[in-house]
Amino acid sequence: MRIGVLGAGQLGRMLALAGYPLAKTFVFYDMSGSPSVGLGEVIVDREGKYLDDFLSRVDRVTYEFEHLPVEVAEKLAQEKPVHPCPRALQVCQNREAEKTLFGELGIPTPRWKIADSAGSLRAVAENLGCPVVAKSNTEGYDGKGQAVLRSPEDAEAAWEAIGHPRLMVEKFVEFSREVSIVAVRGEDGQLAFYPISENVHHEGILRYSIAPAPKLEKHTQQDAERYIKELMNELGYVGVLTLELFETANGLVANEMAPRVHNSGHWTIEGAMTSQFENHIRAVSGHPLGSVEPRGLSCMINIIGEHGEVERLLELPYAHVHLYNKGERPGRKLGHVNVLADSYEELVWRVRNCVQFLPGSPEFISSLNRKSKG
Amino acid sequence: MRIGVLGAGQLGRMLALAGYPLAKTFVFYDMSGSPSVGLGEVIVDREGKYLDDFLSRVDRVTYEFEHLPVEVAEKLAQEKPVHPCPRALQVCQNREAEKTLFGELGIPTPRWKIADSAGSLRAVAENLGCPVVAKSNTEGYDGKGQAVLRSPEDAEAAWEAIGHPRLMVEKFVEFSREVSIVAVRGEDGQLAFYPISENVHHEGILRYSIAPAPKLEKHTQQDAERYIKELMNELGYVGVLTLELFETANGLVANEMAPRVHNSGHWTIEGAMTSQFENHIRAVSGHPLGSVEPRGLSCMINIIGEHGEVERLLELPYAHVHLYNKGERPGRKLGHVNVLADSYEELVWRVRNCVQFLPGSPEFISSLNRKSKG
Repeated sequence: MRIGVLGAGQLGRMLALAGYPLAKTFVFYDMSGSPSVGLGEVIVDREGKYLDDFLSRVDRVTYEFEHLPVEVAEKLAQEKPVHPCPRALQVCQNREAEKTLFGELGIPTPRWKIADSAGSLRAVAENLGCPVVAKSNTEGYDGKGQAVLRSPEDAEAAWEAIGHPRLMVEKFVEFSREVSIVAVRGEDGQLAFYPISENVHHEGILRYSIAPAPKLEKHTQQDAERYIKELMNELGYVGVLTLELFETANGLVANEMAPRVHNSGHWTIEGAMTSQFENHIRAVSGHPLGSVEPRGLSCMINIIGEHGEVERLLELPYAHVHLYNKGERPGRKLGHVNVLADSYEELVWRVRNCVQFLPGSPEFISSLNRKSKG
Repeated sequence: MRIGVLGAGQLGRMLALAGYPLAKTFVFYDMSGSPSVGLGEVIVDREGKYLDDFLSRVDRVTYEFEHLPVEVAEKLAQEKPVHPCPRALQVCQNREAEKTLFGELGIPTPRWKIADSAGSLRAVAENLGCPVVAKSNTEGYDGKGQAVLRSPEDAEAAWEAIGHPRLMVEKFVEFSREVSIVAVRGEDGQLAFYPISENVHHEGILRYSIAPAPKLEKHTQQDAERYIKELMNELGYVGVLTLELFETANGLVANEMAPRVHNSGHWTIEGAMTSQFENHIRAVSGHPLGSVEPRGLSCMINIIGEHGEVERLLELPYAHVHLYNKGERPGRKLGHVNVLADSYEELVWRVRNCVQFLPGSPEFISSLNRKSKG
């Protein structure tokens, strides 16, 4: 079976590495003009002229990024199976649609309102109570097109800074940590849920994911599974879906979803019986899903901006290095290191050992540190 | 770094899958006219016209099969680093040179003699004492070009059947089982040894490898490590080397070596901290070696001739399916399944579950069965 992947970055690369052992072949369709997938056939098509060619050469279509015109996905879906479905894309590209869907399905979210002018932004900020975060309703990702309002007086400046005609405004959530759940749904509706990971961000970029998340209460995993199950069943979803959440004193609150394999699931390559990449390929191909059981404890460390001392990392017996073969650039994801351990204490120690060779990495502060301090 | 691989079969494929995450790229050089690697760039060159082109495009050269003209490897080695060294190839292509080297290094072998005529074959058979096995001294592999002599009278027929001017004749060894050790040596001489695997053959083809080999005495692992270490140091070897051995009442006896990643090491993909493929790439690239620690107990089951019910295998949570995307043909290696377990009892049960979906597979008879019967 030949799988067409819309997008040609590191997620597509890791999908392919997981798919070849299942006898899949790959064609990547790149709209950016700078594919980094580095293996398989790549059709570079900034002007959208070769989409039919791409389509004629594949059996099924998936995507590795969600900033894809929905019309394109819909057009493709008329000809070949496209997983996940275009509706999932549509929802993810519009924060209002996403939050509305969450609400309909009983998935808790921060309080939110829409603003469509500087004046309404101010009114919304007053109504919700500051601080609030305003985000462009469409086209924003990775912390871009966002502003925090500490008081309603910040509305004018925030409106100008974001420069978007429609904003999602959310009340700040008091959370203890950020977590996510990665799940997969097969063509036959079979479901599997990876354990929740704890995610540590710095400057708007994911830096660490620890899985299974330490000190997790059993009902928290169950709640997350219930929420993502509702989403997948409602959307008739096929493939891997990720739901980012805040853990609060009142339980989980949903932040956003990503209709694809996710950075916070990279730990599954060595840390689970079947990786998120293999399970996505299995789902998209109509195969049974693989086991999502964890294999020990994992921490994924992103390599951001510069590679650091890779040779030193390769010396560490517990570190698995995954490079994307991309050039260095500030803020760019260049690879990740999966660290395995049998206890959280050992995991912390091993992560610290790795981080000394990754100069751009922030201090490893997670619930694990709080534990070791307390 | 771009690695040139001589050969373009499933071993090259798995080397590439392990090498991409270390930011390597690959060019395969195929002399057979039927490459099956299925990813990366392949230069098909049955007449040897494009070797210079291949060489100009790679930083280092390795190979995935040992039936490669030594002159070619030597020529390449004048231009670019070739790992393992051409001498390792030379030794492996000549049973007399191989057994002689084993003897020089104090590695036990079956008693052997060379025969260069039907008459001398008869004399050698009488001298060694039948049964003996006669093998073409060069160019034989996977049980081809071999004959068993139950009595010296078989010499004439065996000589005709093999049709080779020089034969290696070995006295039969009474062995309890066949085992192998896979080891890796870095550019700096660093050494790492995987645990010995027990290998079950049927009709001259490897069917199962169990690792770590059950009921293994500690000194057996130590002996195997000592033997393969002698070989690697003597040859100045860089990369993965495999040594096939017989386990006998008097300890290990060496059968043959393979200067490459080996079918009996495929279990390392999920069953060890670092796979044989990644460690070969690390060694060839001059990186530090990765940990060879096992992760639980493994059994590798070869998929031979026909694929069987792959969908059923994919349903089993403990089975990892690795397909080579090759057409079915009797006796052809099409893929393998790695089964993981925490106990040998569980492993046996799981392997039996898998084998029911692989119709061509012989019964799983290993030391594990003998244990469960006794």
